[in-house]
Amino acid sequence: MYLPPDCQAIQMALPQRRQRLSELIDIPVVLWSGRYSPRNFPANTYPFRASSHFLYFAGLPLENAAIRLEGERLELFLDEAPAGNALWHGEMPQPSDIAEWIGADGVFPHTELEARAQGAATVRVQHPETQAQQVRILQRSVPAPPQSTGIDRALVEAIVTLRLTHDQGGLAELRKAGAVTVAAHKAGMAATQIASLEAGVRGTMEGVILSHNMTCSYNSIVTVHGEVLHNEQYCHPLQPGNLLLADVGAETPLGWAADVTRTWPVSGQFSPTQREIYQIVLAAHDACIEQIKSGVEYQEIHLLGARVIAAGLVDLGILRGAVEDLVEQDAHALFFPHGIGHVLGLDVHDMEDLGDLAGYAAGRRRSQRFGLKFLRLNRPLKAGMLVTIEPGFYQVPGILNDSKNRDRYHNLVNWERLDQFSDVRGIRIEDDVWVTETGTEVLTRDLPTQLEEIETLINHR
Amino acid sequence: MYLPPDCQAIQMALPQRRQRLSELIDIPVVLWSGRYSPRNFPANTYPFRASSHFLYFAGLPLENAAIRLEGERLELFLDEAPAGNALWHGEMPQPSDIAEWIGADGVFPHTELEARAQGAATVRVQHPETQAQQVRILQRSVPAPPQSTGIDRALVEAIVTLRLTHDQGGLAELRKAGAVTVAAHKAGMAATQIASLEAGVRGTMEGVILSHNMTCSYNSIVTVHGEVLHNEQYCHPLQPGNLLLADVGAETPLGWAADVTRTWPVSGQFSPTQREIYQIVLAAHDACIEQIKSGVEYQEIHLLGARVIAAGLVDLGILRGAVEDLVEQDAHALFFPHGIGHVLGLDVHDMEDLGDLAGYAAGRRRSQRFGLKFLRLNRPLKAGMLVTIEPGFYQVPGILNDSKNRDRYHNLVNWERLDQFSDVRGIRIEDDVWVTETGTEVLTRDLPTQLEEIETLINHR
Repeated sequence: MYLPPDCQAIQMALPQRRQRLSELIDIPVVLWSGRYSPRNFPANTYPFRASSHFLYFAGLPLENAAIRLEGERLELFLDEAPAGNALWHGEMPQPSDIAEWIGADGVFPHTELEARAQGAATVRVQHPETQAQQVRILQRSVPAPPQSTGIDRALVEAIVTLRLTHDQGGLAELRKAGAVTVAAHKAGMAATQIASLEAGVRGTMEGVILSHNMTCSYNSIVTVHGEVLHNEQYCHPLQPGNLLLADVGAETPLGWAADVTRTWPVSGQFSPTQREIYQIVLAAHDACIEQIKSGVEYQEIHLLGARVIAAGLVDLGILRGAVEDLVEQDAHALFFPHGIGHVLGLDVHDMEDLGDLAGYAAGRRRSQRFGLKFLRLNRPLKAGMLVTIEPGFYQVPGILNDSKNRDRYHNLVNWERLDQFSDVRGIRIEDDVWVTETGTEVLTRDLPTQLEEIETLINHR
Repeated sequence: MYLPPDCQAIQMALPQRRQRLSELIDIPVVLWSGRYSPRNFPANTYPFRASSHFLYFAGLPLENAAIRLEGERLELFLDEAPAGNALWHGEMPQPSDIAEWIGADGVFPHTELEARAQGAATVRVQHPETQAQQVRILQRSVPAPPQSTGIDRALVEAIVTLRLTHDQGGLAELRKAGAVTVAAHKAGMAATQIASLEAGVRGTMEGVILSHNMTCSYNSIVTVHGEVLHNEQYCHPLQPGNLLLADVGAETPLGWAADVTRTWPVSGQFSPTQREIYQIVLAAHDACIEQIKSGVEYQEIHLLGARVIAAGLVDLGILRGAVEDLVEQDAHALFFPHGIGHVLGLDVHDMEDLGDLAGYAAGRRRSQRFGLKFLRLNRPLKAGMLVTIEPGFYQVPGILNDSKNRDRYHNLVNWERLDQFSDVRGIRIEDDVWVTETGTEVLTRDLPTQLEEIETLINHR
């Protein structure tokens, strides 16, 4: 942990975040940051990632810390580094210095936490031993957030209200994550022709992110098998006819995420069939972003994307019928089985630890429809939200070869025509879109989406 | 998880490993691989790392698997991928295919494990929920390995016997990890003059490792503050007078590690004072490797390194006195406070989850001496062991400014002379050394250690 040099925007945002929380709930709150998780032995850990709820209110990725919020009062619980620590890990900022940075009114060792935490609401963290500590300190059970009740549930709802829209501090970080992510994708495109494996492009892209002193906000997807939605293998060779799908995003040192996908041809030139499908996905991407502004229902954006894809596939002769009917029957979902996007912030799927309490407006539940059940966000959009827009087209064997789907969509799909597009396994185009009162600002707009520009980035190195 | 294309050497080594285990202990053994650990929300995990003990006997990084070994019989416990998995994660190899690859005599779903695991020895894994599963399935406590007793302790001792020396399968993987690590360090040197932060060099080095479809075997140290031994910050700017210390190692997809350190001048040219100290550390490095062969006590190698460093510092006028006396009084440890190295294999500090049961021969315990207490390995060397040799020189404020040290070493250190070496914060030179009957093979020998060669790699890009 270090005090980053350029994070005044976050520092300045903290008091207002805490004040807004105190306006929403009138109960003390204790939030834990979590601890290192061991990898293959206790001293060889995964890189530390603080709980996002802690980061939202404390700003800094402090390991093994807790904060107590009550009204506008903030207390920090953080032990001094143990003797001998300086040899192995260097001089750490003193707890009192950190307390000053985050604007805490008091700083205490962990031994003080139990006495001061009674009656407080909390959110369960990911780190198992810290979960146990939460239970021990609060002297009660602390269920997973989607199952929370009482004061914990009230806290979750207040946090959702706050974190759904971003202040200037969050936005400044999200812009930085977006800019580095754009650079990583451009480098990935430029490296494609010298890479022999998917891993070669992945290494180049993540190398750029690390070189900016950021980390990855999720495990990168860099694959010629774009039809596998969360593919985390990088072992396939890059072949000239392949499309490479790269879903890679940076995370700032303070924890703010980007999430971007581009799909490009290994050869540097899209085939005619790849161009046709790419243009459909891009049309959906552009149409969705065009329609976003405060007040619009995100599910309507999803359905708009579905209609544009369905219409494009009708034009190509892959689907048959009226666009509205096809979407109503979820025929688009044969090729676009996931949602049009999600909220983005401190988490790449922001607040997904809260289940659908963040993504879905009160009283709404996931549809069981094939074309809607993977939609992660179903709320009216508000100015200050950051959402992804990520339409796609995939030929997933498990979907297209499923006999139930073959029966159900027998008359709606021209399977022979589809066979002509066998060099299109998966295409996704994803950007990070900031919602304003009147429209959008695409934080990742500097990364081209047009076919020709992408081809130029691959070939010009 | 995938079946890697070039890992026949591991596959061929598995039967013999299991046979040797059955010769050492006559009890059934169950080993768990572990599971994904969550990062900031359950679906956003850290990259999976299987337990090293599981990897040793099963070969493949299977998530949420267990093996049961009894005599030469091997059973695999692995559930089929759940329905719908293919959409998100692609088609996985079937448990029966994996069982065939690893040479299992039977394959069972997890539900069968409890009935077949009774009375088995095990080693506690790192993943907390899997630890709980171990207790539940075995219906007994499973303490951390250093505290193990009875059959678990017998298993630990057998595993130490096996894993301390490497077979051809392990060696083949360790060579691959070493080769990629060498490439990463060379790239880091070549990138230094265009990087502005430590992060720039780190990103380049890790980018090379990822590009070879490997991962890092530990959190990289790439720092101008080499005096912080496990520095994991990358935010400092690179200044022309700085030395950059890079301790970065690759891990193969099957889990085998390299661990290499080089220290080089940001400017591309060592200063005269940096050259003087570097030559001392290099002399220690070379002398230690020169003396290694089967039968030699590793602690003697450590003390040899300490003597070479002490002698060099006497020559420079930093230490005063007879070399043997200085080392006996631990005066070298003011500047070289850690051990000369450790065993290396599936873990970067191999089997460190077992505490000192692996590193220290039976009946030996850590010395409390300042100059010996951080020595991780104290055994007679055997052909087939892989050890690091990593002497260093550091100016650690917490050591050199400690008033007890100032008093104790008052007459042995020329502090004014030391002040002239203020541009040497930390130097370490580390290689991976394979022990043979008659000497060594340095697996990472292709990475230069000589000053001039390093300067050439930095300046020639």
